[in-house]
Amino acid sequence: MTLGRVVRNIERAQAEVIDGLGQCGVSTVHEAQGREGLLSSTLRPIYPGARIAGSAVTIFAPPGDNWMLHVAIELLRTGDVLVLQPTSPCEDGYFGDLLATSAMARGCRGLVINAGVRDVRELGEMGFPVWSKTICAQGTVKATLGSVNVPVVCAGAMVEPGDVIVADDDGVCVVKRADAAEVLAAAQERERNETTKRARLQAGELGLDIYRMRETLAAAGIRYE
Amino acid sequence: MTLGRVVRNIERAQAEVIDGLGQCGVSTVHEAQGREGLLSSTLRPIYPGARIAGSAVTIFAPPGDNWMLHVAIELLRTGDVLVLQPTSPCEDGYFGDLLATSAMARGCRGLVINAGVRDVRELGEMGFPVWSKTICAQGTVKATLGSVNVPVVCAGAMVEPGDVIVADDDGVCVVKRADAAEVLAAAQERERNETTKRARLQAGELGLDIYRMRETLAAAGIRYE
Amino acid sequence: MTLGRVVRNIERAQAEVIDGLGQCGVSTVHEAQGREGLLSSTLRPIYPGARIAGSAVTIFAPPGDNWMLHVAIELLRTGDVLVLQPTSPCEDGYFGDLLATSAMARGCRGLVINAGVRDVRELGEMGFPVWSKTICAQGTVKATLGSVNVPVVCAGAMVEPGDVIVADDDGVCVVKRADAAEVLAAAQERERNETTKRARLQAGELGLDIYRMRETLAAAGIRYE
Amino acid sequence: MTLGRVVRNIERAQAEVIDGLGQCGVSTVHEAQGREGLLSSTLRPIYPGARIAGSAVTIFAPPGDNWMLHVAIELLRTGDVLVLQPTSPCEDGYFGDLLATSAMARGCRGLVINAGVRDVRELGEMGFPVWSKTICAQGTVKATLGSVNVPVVCAGAMVEPGDVIVADDDGVCVVKRADAAEVLAAAQERERNETTKRARLQAGELGLDIYRMRETLAAAGIRYE
Amino acid sequence: MTLGRVVRNIERAQAEVIDGLGQCGVSTVHEAQGREGLLSSTLRPIYPGARIAGSAVTIFAPPGDNWMLHVAIELLRTGDVLVLQPTSPCEDGYFGDLLATSAMARGCRGLVINAGVRDVRELGEMGFPVWSKTICAQGTVKATLGSVNVPVVCAGAMVEPGDVIVADDDGVCVVKRADAAEVLAAAQERERNETTKRARLQAGELGLDIYRMRETLAAAGIRYE
Amino acid sequence: MTLGRVVRNIERAQAEVIDGLGQCGVSTVHEAQGREGLLSSTLRPIYPGARIAGSAVTIFAPPGDNWMLHVAIELLRTGDVLVLQPTSPCEDGYFGDLLATSAMARGCRGLVINAGVRDVRELGEMGFPVWSKTICAQGTVKATLGSVNVPVVCAGAMVEPGDVIVADDDGVCVVKRADAAEVLAAAQERERNETTKRARLQAGELGLDIYRMRETLAAAGIRYE
Repeated sequence: MTLGRVVRNIERAQAEVIDGLGQCGVSTVHEAQGREGLLSSTLRPIYPGARIAGSAVTIFAPPGDNWMLHVAIELLRTGDVLVLQPTSPCEDGYFGDLLATSAMARGCRGLVINAGVRDVRELGEMGFPVWSKTICAQGTVKATLGSVNVPVVCAGAMVEPGDVIVADDDGVCVVKRADAAEVLAAAQERERNETTKRARLQAGELGLDIYRMRETLAAAGIRYE
Repeated sequence: MTLGRVVRNIERAQAEVIDGLGQCGVSTVHEAQGREGLLSSTLRPIYPGARIAGSAVTIFAPPGDNWMLHVAIELLRTGDVLVLQPTSPCEDGYFGDLLATSAMARGCRGLVINAGVRDVRELGEMGFPVWSKTICAQGTVKATLGSVNVPVVCAGAMVEPGDVIVADDDGVCVVKRADAAEVLAAAQERERNETTKRARLQAGELGLDIYRMRETLAAAGIRYE
Repeated sequence: MTLGRVVRNIERAQAEVIDGLGQCGVSTVHEAQGREGLLSSTLRPIYPGARIAGSAVTIFAPPGDNWMLHVAIELLRTGDVLVLQPTSPCEDGYFGDLLATSAMARGCRGLVINAGVRDVRELGEMGFPVWSKTICAQGTVKATLGSVNVPVVCAGAMVEPGDVIVADDDGVCVVKRADAAEVLAAAQERERNETTKRARLQAGELGLDIYRMRETLAAAGIRYE
Repeated sequence: MTLGRVVRNIERAQAEVIDGLGQCGVSTVHEAQGREGLLSSTLRPIYPGARIAGSAVTIFAPPGDNWMLHVAIELLRTGDVLVLQPTSPCEDGYFGDLLATSAMARGCRGLVINAGVRDVRELGEMGFPVWSKTICAQGTVKATLGSVNVPVVCAGAMVEPGDVIVADDDGVCVVKRADAAEVLAAAQERERNETTKRARLQAGELGLDIYRMRETLAAAGIRYE
Repeated sequence: MTLGRVVRNIERAQAEVIDGLGQCGVSTVHEAQGREGLLSSTLRPIYPGARIAGSAVTIFAPPGDNWMLHVAIELLRTGDVLVLQPTSPCEDGYFGDLLATSAMARGCRGLVINAGVRDVRELGEMGFPVWSKTICAQGTVKATLGSVNVPVVCAGAMVEPGDVIVADDDGVCVVKRADAAEVLAAAQERERNETTKRARLQAGELGLDIYRMRETLAAAGIRYE
Repeated sequence: MTLGRVVRNIERAQAEVIDGLGQCGVSTVHEAQGREGLLSSTLRPIYPGARIAGSAVTIFAPPGDNWMLHVAIELLRTGDVLVLQPTSPCEDGYFGDLLATSAMARGCRGLVINAGVRDVRELGEMGFPVWSKTICAQGTVKATLGSVNVPVVCAGAMVEPGDVIVADDDGVCVVKRADAAEVLAAAQERERNETTKRARLQAGELGLDIYRMRETLAAAGIRYE
């Protein structure tokens, strides 16, 4: 394991692509890239309504040790999202309002952490969104090295530094950097398509008819009584 | 198992009884019918403050397959509540804003689902309440039949089509259709009774005195020090 | 086990110390006393934004039996917080709006319960905060004695009657009564210290420099690429 | 809720049908009745290797209260299986070696309990199998009535008194009393069918060929590389 | 928090009292001391059949850091049991066959750990019993101080150094050192009492009659049908 | 997502390297490769004592759909291990004794599945080991394509086809194919080193002295009392 390794420079996707993905949101983006890259639904936002996208700066941190967050913050650029995975399951509060102040000062858009977070009222007041496994006041130490900007499996999904993170009330999704533009196009196409369908459904038309399901249901043996 | 079975016509309780139960709320209704019919507290509302009652249109759906939701929506009448139980435990997002648009167009009051839901921000904006096991962007397929309007055990409670579903911030409760009027009467009686007690408690009187517990506590051997 | 035992008179910390701890909040107080006394993060507030501190009136109650809550309410003084631990794991709704009315009438500031609570909408409207393991409409009986104002291990932390309970969006922390003044001083010192650091971080200075971590990271073998 | 209700006499399936179902085992019986009636996989045997079937004597018991087990034991006949569901989630040890001694003296074949059990080493030595949610030394009281031989939803499945319970290392399944003979026939047919298939698979033939899946896979769009 | 504190000398209960408690087992001892002192049932033995008692040498260890185990092992005396509680929830494998070899060499009877353990096959072959929260190969570091022989809340129960730990297939129970002799007497009395009852139940007598429950059931309103 | 994609030919590590890793076991191999590649400890063996290593044939399967297992079995070579990850969380029993018969006929050494398995008694009798998330009799359908021999994140670890899977009572670990020989060498070195230490510890020497911890503990501020 590459503990102690810090990669200073990573490639990022284009800013307008990232922002476009953020506007589409997690569920649409996840569909648009073939239902790939969803992080576990055990990660939840600390307050409702946030919707972000940004470039992943990844952190692989020992349990109960947030030393590497300080290292990572130095590497943040405007538009980045911190992604922290502990090396083994942990629920400690790795991150609070001081770290958020520092991250915001460097243009960070939010944190995705498969562990705990604290000072959540202050984070809400600051408008710094976090998707975490839990909320926990338990602090951490700074004693053991982890790594920064290495590939991590975070909450069940592979995240590489510079991948695009999309997060909202539906959860968190990762888009590979190289696929970002193509996924955005597919997501926007999907949105246009949904707008039409939404109007038809609102008018009372049925999915059974719009999607022509009556025949396939009958073929599958459905029995109405 | 009657997979592939769809019952078109179900009996429903009287509209005013249903609405009355909704006004009483889950905790009162659950008490009024002898602490019966509570669904597991693992089902939680996707936003606070909703309080509904409606007739159950039940769905028994394969894991990760929401085909039957389309079938069920055709059978909805104004005042109905969709109740979906997967045939085995599943956390996928079976339902989102398009299906909600369609369900609302047919007068549906909400969804109770022992699985996942997505597009929760949009659902909140539309005012379509959902009580679910989780929030998850993971989509579903349309490949395998389930059943609609058959009895299901949903989150630990037996729900038959046409039973009354009551749901609010305290959870979800089912009232058997045939018992609905009687349960409403008991619930309203209970509310009247609580109003009196609330006033006495607010005035500083103690439950120990109102419920005459001092003697039974003493008989049970309580020791004050 | 001292079931059936009720201690009428307990010592409490000074009112201004208690209130000061409440203003500092859980994460700061927990740090200030050396990361002691945090209750499990499985206890969550029923609504966001509440921040309280008060003297613990403890309840050790059988599963599904809230008789002792009535006994405890008689012993409440203004500024107290009820702390209920079941004698074995339980998720029933021990507490609702009637008990809250009674507790508020006696000056109670909130409830910490390692079990369930109900009538949460009403509790929110009343402004009576609760930190609980779950929200559940399931009611309880009044058949078996527990104890009041005895030491309890609640959600993993030892709580003695009269200890100071601090609770907010970050969770719940207990401060030993005898240590309360000293912990408050340390917490306030910590807050002053954080104010300075927050300003420096906001100005773009890095934790790496403020905390002089570059040397220790290098000594630990960090490798930048 | 019919707490306090005890039904003395229940109908049972034929002994040879029950025993036949026990020989088929849970997975086969569950398939044979159309994947109906499986209890949650959270119920696990306290020791490996037991395989039983018997008529359900059902118990609906308050949390932490095993009074009704004594009432149920009087109603046991040779070949019965006790099925206990608490009225709300509970992990206490409702049942130990003394109750098992009593139940065995009346011909009981085992216990299915959506709660805890204790004295598990002794139960193993006695050869009294239990499928439970947990193992827990925490005892129970005898203070509040429940019911015996009423329909219960146990671990997610509806169980009526006299239904056939099948339990082995794969879990627990319930077969409706009226369907038992028909399900047995289907299960035995299934076993004969599997014997042939097992031999072919053992000889190296592939499921792809035995079940003629190559065409359907191709039609579904499978792409070999 | 007293991290870094190590108490060399602790008082222990009498060896014959400890051994007597071990022979009674967890469920009996827990009952005999009034249902006090049970650790959470989430702690499970790594192999069936072990039954031990010993004096607690307690360890309060940072998450993912087993340095203090080495410190504690030096303090072990024949007949002791190691009790490890992490300072925040952790599932890492703090302990394996090398530490067990060392602990056995000093007469240690087993380990109770509210975290993970590894090398479980080797531990079984060595006959070194462990009750743990999980089994996990993830190793730990030696970077941060914890404490040894300080009071800890372990898996929900307060354990003080020198308290008697009883552990078997039913779980883990702690007996306060000062109460050990008295609890042993009560446990042995309880065992004698159970022997008589077991014989009567085996002979077919009913608990309903032995415990004279028919009258109390009737008084509580039981209704036979 | 590459659903419907099947890669026929994959590279595998050398047989003697694979077998050597299996003899070292999970905990040693995991340490030897720098604590990388451990699957979540929620995967547990269905019976104790199995210790295997083999080349991963990976399956990415829809929830409740085991069609791809049939496809994968055709691609098995002697010494392979099946690794199944569902596309979303699922606990169904994807695999039973018929599939095991077929897999064994092709030389398969075991199954690692982040979902359920059934027929566990038969699997134990056949000596076919499985590490699974749960044991569940619930069957699956064959309606929707997944993929075979594509990279999967299984239980939190990235597994590529042909990687070496090591599994025993401590859990499951994956070794990258290209690293296998090097990891084996490190693991064997580690074993040799442990043999020496084990002897010294058995003789009563302390880890404090063997690892020269007394100075570092003192430097960290340990306080003996």
